[in-house]
Amino acid sequence: MTYSPPTFLDIQKAAERIAPFANITPVLTSSTINKMAGKKLYFKCENFQKVGAFKFRGACNAVFSLKDNEAAKGVATHSSGNHAAGLALAGKLREISVHVVMPRNAPKVKIEAVKGYGAKIIFCEPTLEAREASLNQVKNETGAVVIHSYNDERIIAGQGTVALEFLQEYPDLDTLIAPVGGGGLISGTCVAAKGINPNITIIGAEPRGADDAFQSLKKGEIIPQTNPQTIADGLLTTLGDKTFPIIREHVEKILTVSEEWIVRAMRLIWERMNIIVEPSSAVVLAALLEHSEEHVGNHIGLILTGGNADLDNLPW
Amino acid sequence: MTYSPPTFLDIQKAAERIAPFANITPVLTSSTINKMAGKKLYFKCENFQKVGAFKFRGACNAVFSLKDNEAAKGVATHSSGNHAAGLALAGKLREISVHVVMPRNAPKVKIEAVKGYGAKIIFCEPTLEAREASLNQVKNETGAVVIHSYNDERIIAGQGTVALEFLQEYPDLDTLIAPVGGGGLISGTCVAAKGINPNITIIGAEPRGADDAFQSLKKGEIIPQTNPQTIADGLLTTLGDKTFPIIREHVEKILTVSEEWIVRAMRLIWERMNIIVEPSSAVVLAALLEHSEEHVGNHIGLILTGGNADLDNLPW
Repeated sequence: MTYSPPTFLDIQKAAERIAPFANITPVLTSSTINKMAGKKLYFKCENFQKVGAFKFRGACNAVFSLKDNEAAKGVATHSSGNHAAGLALAGKLREISVHVVMPRNAPKVKIEAVKGYGAKIIFCEPTLEAREASLNQVKNETGAVVIHSYNDERIIAGQGTVALEFLQEYPDLDTLIAPVGGGGLISGTCVAAKGINPNITIIGAEPRGADDAFQSLKKGEIIPQTNPQTIADGLLTTLGDKTFPIIREHVEKILTVSEEWIVRAMRLIWERMNIIVEPSSAVVLAALLEHSEEHVGNHIGLILTGGNADLDNLPW
Repeated sequence: MTYSPPTFLDIQKAAERIAPFANITPVLTSSTINKMAGKKLYFKCENFQKVGAFKFRGACNAVFSLKDNEAAKGVATHSSGNHAAGLALAGKLREISVHVVMPRNAPKVKIEAVKGYGAKIIFCEPTLEAREASLNQVKNETGAVVIHSYNDERIIAGQGTVALEFLQEYPDLDTLIAPVGGGGLISGTCVAAKGINPNITIIGAEPRGADDAFQSLKKGEIIPQTNPQTIADGLLTTLGDKTFPIIREHVEKILTVSEEWIVRAMRLIWERMNIIVEPSSAVVLAALLEHSEEHVGNHIGLILTGGNADLDNLPW
């Protein structure tokens, strides 16, 4: 079966599907940061989304896409991050069971968040093999539908609603910048944004210490991310076979950033905008500021992906 | 001459006057915090106001209230906090000179902020006497109009626009809670809120270590604040003769809070709402949570006054 990527219509349907549950997030600006960048920047604040991250959109779309007989046995995933919380809340809202495989060493605060939404947690060793083996076992035992954190059309369509909302409010943006982890957000962003404005430029932002998307675009095939080294813990994953083709077709370039610039950009957002974003969010602003010589547009939309920062371990 | 406090009409005029310059700030909610409080809470986010605090409203109203011949010689104040920044920006917008007397030991970040808006800073010893003497000298030398940080009808009217905006968006709030420092915000809040809804309840929130408003209401006269001890550095001042009568007439009660609860409430707002507020802002939520036995309404508006927290010295 040939893979058919999500369409603009899928994203519009996702937006309708999640509307009763997801927040329409605000767009903020900062005259100080505009001055520093020499451009007009618009920040789409998914740190104000339910569970504090855009991941709720995809999870919610996936869960509410299921037919009743599919949903009856619940959903399952492996994740130590925001996707786990997003799926847990989405499942709670649909009143189905949610099984989340998490590594034993996942941050306690993230475990508590997933528990707080009523999901069942299955702990495993902190390797990808152990996570996938545990997930398979859960699937076999429960019959739950597995919902991958990014390599899934329903997830991609859900994440695309960020850009849909953004461009509905700010149709004159000439450029969008999104961070790249597994590629769920940026591929959804591509489909939504190009569907509204075929001339818009989509740029990816990636930590230099986890630059698999940059390498993959260069090589023209998926290069797995091994041993990522970055504070941006939402961006450690490898592109998937459902996200890479969309990114290859639509993303103009990937800008990679240093750890130093991630921290500087993060602090700038905290200080100047008075909002809390996690390191993975700051990568988009870091890309603009570190690559000030790069040709980018003048009215730039940046997606701030989430706000689940550890207040006891700030990087400054 | 009898003192005539600002009227509801003054606040409406102030709102028109500052509209070209001030932000209409968002109102945020948190289902987690609602659950903890057992009530519906609405947070008016003045941390997203210009200069990061509601103080810009009063300063802007005062500066743009001046006739051209009054404004020509500039404005002056003494302040080590957000009023200084607010007045500096308002003066810059009107293109008049601004003189700010600051104690030598004011935090560097606040000095830089005031400088950044182009105000002239006059340093003095860190005592109230030295500040007033320096301000008098500036006034005599320059002819600048002195604009006190709270004991001024124009300031009170400007701060009242917070509640005006809040109740225009959420007319069904039955209670408003504002922090009390010198009383500029809460007295403006009283005039605005009672003008819209005479039955609304206004509650003040104050650190127990700087409880001059609580003591003053109890005694029926202004009790000066001596030796305040609190992390809420925006709430150290004593009520003024223009704010106290309004507070005495309209404020139902003052709830005082411990330092521990201020820090807990501040962290809760950071973690659950993903916004940055300074300690003085957190006092309103601390009051609700620490006094859970107190009778208050069910749809409560809380004014978060500012977001200028020191990211290098967090209280946890």
